[in-house]
Amino acid sequence: MTLEDQPDIMQIIDEQEEMNLKKAEIARMIDHTLLKATATREQIRKLCEEAKDYGFASVCVNPVQVPYAAELLRGTEVQVCTVIGFPLGAATSAAKAFETRDAVDNGATEIDMVIDIGAAKEGNFDKVRSDIAAVVEAAQGRLVKVIIETCYLTEEEKAAACRAAADAKADFVKTSTGFGTGGATVHDVALMKAAIPAGMKVKAAGGIHSYEEAVALVQAGADRLGASAGIAIVADAED
Amino acid sequence: MTLEDQPDIMQIIDEQEEMNLKKAEIARMIDHTLLKATATREQIRKLCEEAKDYGFASVCVNPVQVPYAAELLRGTEVQVCTVIGFPLGAATSAAKAFETRDAVDNGATEIDMVIDIGAAKEGNFDKVRSDIAAVVEAAQGRLVKVIIETCYLTEEEKAAACRAAADAKADFVKTSTGFGTGGATVHDVALMKAAIPAGMKVKAAGGIHSYEEAVALVQAGADRLGASAGIAIVADAED
Repeated sequence: MTLEDQPDIMQIIDEQEEMNLKKAEIARMIDHTLLKATATREQIRKLCEEAKDYGFASVCVNPVQVPYAAELLRGTEVQVCTVIGFPLGAATSAAKAFETRDAVDNGATEIDMVIDIGAAKEGNFDKVRSDIAAVVEAAQGRLVKVIIETCYLTEEEKAAACRAAADAKADFVKTSTGFGTGGATVHDVALMKAAIPAGMKVKAAGGIHSYEEAVALVQAGADRLGASAGIAIVADAED
Repeated sequence: MTLEDQPDIMQIIDEQEEMNLKKAEIARMIDHTLLKATATREQIRKLCEEAKDYGFASVCVNPVQVPYAAELLRGTEVQVCTVIGFPLGAATSAAKAFETRDAVDNGATEIDMVIDIGAAKEGNFDKVRSDIAAVVEAAQGRLVKVIIETCYLTEEEKAAACRAAADAKADFVKTSTGFGTGGATVHDVALMKAAIPAGMKVKAAGGIHSYEEAVALVQAGADRLGASAGIAIVADAED
């Protein structure tokens, strides 16, 4: 099922009144994100302090930073989210599963994995599904978000990747790594929302810089937002 | 030891006569590289055929492609090179070691790992060294190249990362992933060559498009070249 089959989705979005999200509402949808290769402990400490202060859903950090983030956030409601097979998705399923178990052992409570994009481009969605399933199993009940990296996929491949994530019992599909050639769009969020079963959720990530963009993505169906600009996004919301 | 302490290195390079590398000579220095997230088996098959035809040193592919590349190259002299903790370097040492063992089990004969760049930025070169050592041990004698991702490091950090790689008994230091903000430069290759002990080698990678660039990097001290443009580079060499 693609957006072309569902033109009414975009029309519904266009015709909706603009949503109004208060500071606290939008903050608790945000994964406060720092995935730069150069991130230091000092920057991670600042990220965690900000997440507590603003009431963000999680911090999203690279696996090597998980132990420190988990230590800093112990006893708070802020989740520790990390990324697996990131950002290329081209690790083996065995390596993705090991990395997931290791991250859980280190205190990660949410797992954002990248699909086998090459397999998706080959149309091998059995492999895409089994790769996701290996991570879901290794996550031992922790929330799993499946990054389909929309910028590299056709409309049909996006929908098929969402179905694979649903079949593999993941919790979320997520648009982008932020390291590809494009980020979250209203169009992709609506497409993904239409492709997943009820109860499954969508995370929009990549290039979300403002409150207006954030609201548009939520209105299109996003339940979570991955952003490094969380503070700027919240700043423009009402109290 | 940095280039600032060794101004004569750049002067020596400037004053050298231009090197002349024949097709076969330069081909056997090239790691024929395809690390795109979207790479398919069909593209990997073509890469392996080209590597055999041109006599490249290796193919450099993502871990998920290693089993197929190893199958295609069995019985040839072309090595199977893969990348670990790539491209951010921000996986844990345990995950990098697992990924390396998994790659070796799948047929990889050369391992290009990315350092813990955040630890380098913090000045924690003990951590940089132990992280490399975990991969060297997991590689069980296979060639290990250590990507220091020069674009993110100061001159002092580049030299210290090279010393950490030497202390950890790696075989090569490598300039770049090709996914950062910069690639190989003559300056960095010379700096790295000066920072490593005799017998250790330098791989230049990232943004090498022409025969002239390749020769300049070899003249500066590179023993291996990582490039997706290997065929174009060889085309401009003499027979």
